[in-house]
Amino acid sequence: MKQTVIQYVLGRLHDIGIKDVFGVPGDFAFPVNDAVVAQPGIRWVGCCNELNAGYAADGYARLNGMGAVCTTYGVGELSALAAIAGSYAEHLPIFHLVGMPNMSVQSSRALMHHTLGNGEYDLFARMAEPVVCARAILTPQNAAAETERVIAAARYHRRPVYLAFPADLADQPVLTTAVALETPRSDPATLAFVVDAIAAKVESATQACVLPGILVARLGGRAALQAVVDASGLPFATMFMDKSVLDEQQSAYVGMYDGKLMNEDVRTYVESCDLVLAIGTLMTDFNTGAFTSRLDPGRTIVVSHHHTRIADKTYGSVEIEDVLAAIVDRIRAGKKREGLTTAVSAPSSGSGSDPITAAALYPRLEAFLREDDIIVAETGTISMGLGFARMPAGATFHNQTLWGAIGWATPAAFGAALAAPERRTILMTGEGSHQLTAQEISQFGRLGLRPIVIVLNNNGYLIERLLCKNPDIAYNDVAQWRYTALPEALGCDGWFTARVTSCGELDEALRTASGSTDAAYIEVVTGTYESSPLAAQLGKRMKEIYAT
Amino acid sequence: MKQTVIQYVLGRLHDIGIKDVFGVPGDFAFPVNDAVVAQPGIRWVGCCNELNAGYAADGYARLNGMGAVCTTYGVGELSALAAIAGSYAEHLPIFHLVGMPNMSVQSSRALMHHTLGNGEYDLFARMAEPVVCARAILTPQNAAAETERVIAAARYHRRPVYLAFPADLADQPVLTTAVALETPRSDPATLAFVVDAIAAKVESATQACVLPGILVARLGGRAALQAVVDASGLPFATMFMDKSVLDEQQSAYVGMYDGKLMNEDVRTYVESCDLVLAIGTLMTDFNTGAFTSRLDPGRTIVVSHHHTRIADKTYGSVEIEDVLAAIVDRIRAGKKREGLTTAVSAPSSGSGSDPITAAALYPRLEAFLREDDIIVAETGTISMGLGFARMPAGATFHNQTLWGAIGWATPAAFGAALAAPERRTILMTGEGSHQLTAQEISQFGRLGLRPIVIVLNNNGYLIERLLCKNPDIAYNDVAQWRYTALPEALGCDGWFTARVTSCGELDEALRTASGSTDAAYIEVVTGTYESSPLAAQLGKRMKEIYAT
Repeated sequence: MKQTVIQYVLGRLHDIGIKDVFGVPGDFAFPVNDAVVAQPGIRWVGCCNELNAGYAADGYARLNGMGAVCTTYGVGELSALAAIAGSYAEHLPIFHLVGMPNMSVQSSRALMHHTLGNGEYDLFARMAEPVVCARAILTPQNAAAETERVIAAARYHRRPVYLAFPADLADQPVLTTAVALETPRSDPATLAFVVDAIAAKVESATQACVLPGILVARLGGRAALQAVVDASGLPFATMFMDKSVLDEQQSAYVGMYDGKLMNEDVRTYVESCDLVLAIGTLMTDFNTGAFTSRLDPGRTIVVSHHHTRIADKTYGSVEIEDVLAAIVDRIRAGKKREGLTTAVSAPSSGSGSDPITAAALYPRLEAFLREDDIIVAETGTISMGLGFARMPAGATFHNQTLWGAIGWATPAAFGAALAAPERRTILMTGEGSHQLTAQEISQFGRLGLRPIVIVLNNNGYLIERLLCKNPDIAYNDVAQWRYTALPEALGCDGWFTARVTSCGELDEALRTASGSTDAAYIEVVTGTYESSPLAAQLGKRMKEIYAT
Repeated sequence: MKQTVIQYVLGRLHDIGIKDVFGVPGDFAFPVNDAVVAQPGIRWVGCCNELNAGYAADGYARLNGMGAVCTTYGVGELSALAAIAGSYAEHLPIFHLVGMPNMSVQSSRALMHHTLGNGEYDLFARMAEPVVCARAILTPQNAAAETERVIAAARYHRRPVYLAFPADLADQPVLTTAVALETPRSDPATLAFVVDAIAAKVESATQACVLPGILVARLGGRAALQAVVDASGLPFATMFMDKSVLDEQQSAYVGMYDGKLMNEDVRTYVESCDLVLAIGTLMTDFNTGAFTSRLDPGRTIVVSHHHTRIADKTYGSVEIEDVLAAIVDRIRAGKKREGLTTAVSAPSSGSGSDPITAAALYPRLEAFLREDDIIVAETGTISMGLGFARMPAGATFHNQTLWGAIGWATPAAFGAALAAPERRTILMTGEGSHQLTAQEISQFGRLGLRPIVIVLNNNGYLIERLLCKNPDIAYNDVAQWRYTALPEALGCDGWFTARVTSCGELDEALRTASGSTDAAYIEVVTGTYESSPLAAQLGKRMKEIYAT
């Protein structure tokens, strides 16, 4: 029997690694919803709302390489749009499957529910355009070819794509065939030139280092990059968005590089190198210490997904995987490179009934981490604190550094946990951010996942208090919740919950969570202005930085 | 001292009736956030997330005539977009105030947080275009003129508008002046012609009725329309989206008209009229009993906001207010019009330990209502049940009939309650829908509002079970929450809560809620398939209806 349009698409998504589709069902999407449930090897994962489903798919894609979210027409897809935009910014290929009204309804221009009431049916697909790298409305004729086109686009750009299914066409048999598009290969001559140039620069440099970038992780290229570091003996420093792309426990790691905002020794080291090899990095505000890093373009080589920049010249048609594979044999450790001894993490302060200061909190959270943990850290003071903790071997740190939407972390942690249930998932969020999407905690319980949730309650939006004119202004306050009552209210049974206000209580709660495989939800109450060092720096220096 | 750009805009919004701005703050929006807090007569109302803030503004506008929501750049504004789209569909003027990065950042094309990382800064304003009727990016030069233009557009179209403020320009003094644009007036000759034609048609009709429409309520024209009904003695029937535009306790009310789906006597009455005067209605799927109503265009006059259609001809440049004001004197009751005795509401069934069936539930909810209540009913089986309850005098029924986004009702009820705190606000929602936006319950508690919340727990998305192929399919299930634990977890103190599974428990809970001025949160547990009559009809007849 011939496959239907939606079966064809789902089959191809399964081929390339999609095992779960997050979403909220809806009448125009029933054919898509039905097919997801029926598709062998794919699971429907219902979420509380579409934005959360989008964030969950984003978190899932950070572990799984790609993700999928399914929404209904108009009301559903627009609710997910902000999450899709975040995945676009952060280079995550998300397949957004949207159910549309059937063709006869569309052509009648009827005033249907879930429309704007103006008879226009193509507006929402148009609204998605800036935040996806490819779109298609699927028919029996185009399904095969369009599916291959959008899959290729999602893989090439590592960005979301939009696939819409008119309800009556989704279940029609596919009428044509197509083969998967070939992965782009490097131009051999350009590749050879680039690799020679990199090898020569590395060879001649007295002091050189690598800046490993998140774009490598997005391609599943961590091991290839590690091989380069191992072979070359080059030290590496890491920027915020790129945290844990390479393991921080190895001797080659020199520390976090964040311009003038944080570790001055790391900054001096990196900026005094003859050669900085930036591989898959993005020079965003939060990666550059709010644009305070100073990398001489003449001494920096930037290897991006599909091009490499050496000095002031950009070479296209060179694929980052090919560059990594080629240079591993060309830049073998010739001379001993001096790295930098990574600073020992600060010991934690306080004990017993002492209040939980930043100096008490962040070292404890760091000590709590284990090998292979998944840490999903929300934008705000908590991720800025955790971003400078040294990760155990195999642990991965996930943050929405560029898009920076508060609320992302809670559903993203759900998606991440689902993608790698054999690992321990730790959600670290401020309470203000948690409020945006807190209901998604219920999905952990529903699916029997056992995360560790740390909710930092500092009485409002702390990072905003630090950045705005009047920290105590009303808009930085949030509703006062009883956070530890949430898991039970949301149907999460058997969770360990604790509200801690002192160092002793915090130690005990972390000990309990650490010694158990049950889920844990710990509300950590600090003073209103207890901020992590980076957050405090940003607060102090923002006006000065942005005045320039 | 000269006003700043943002002060000017807020001053004008206050002039036209905005007293509250819902929102979530953010760094690019600080100048806007600061100004809202400082503006005399305007209150900042923080919400848990931007979608909820948009829905709250929508609910507020239904009572207040217009509303405002304030978000930050990118992450914030896109999260609110689905709510703005809903307000567009439902003809609610919402002022969406968005803080943007400053001009030097924009022109630098820097890779800033809250952007897509591609150096483009105008994408999000473009994405808003299909769901607003006017947009402006405000500068000291254009602020005065643009503000008047967008205010005029919002009032004329009764649709949302988008106003963006680059952070450095928001606090600059306004450099120009402008006067409010004049309200459009009807063309006198066309108006006279239309009024004559309506009067003649009414005079010659043997049987005539009015269909009062929601667009009248959107203009604050309820009293003017009531005057027409009073003067003319014409009976009226009401469609779903238009419910409570005119008071249902008057003798002129003949009942709810929903095509072939519901009251057959009302359908026969309306469709046998020589003349149907539809004033401010929209012929959407849910207003027409899924397009089963049959109104002969030759015997229907449609009065819209800015044009009137008589038979097959449309007359532009006639304003609905002018038509109402003119016809009130021209169609005075000449002859006695036979209406229809409104059917007496069904008595409620069941008592004691009987389970809560639909026949037990909806009559009880109807009996629970009081004069002047605000009923905010979520899309789904519960609003379909309540939509056929007879509203007490002065009570208003609010439903998102056209856009139909589940999740809307909870924050919309918050906005409505804030707009009219002297009235009792009753939120009626299914539990599946409630899960999308449930955290906004916390804002009622935070602001001391005392709503009655009825959460109908029927074990999933009932309306979808009725409409999809396999009702028991996994995607119609939702996480199992302990709903009555939510208010306390969300910081709502002193609320009466009850979970009821029998008629006796329901009676007692409603009695307690009725006898108190405290907030109440009642979880009503029914069988999975207990559906209101309209929902059941839709379930039975949808395929048949849409097959045509």
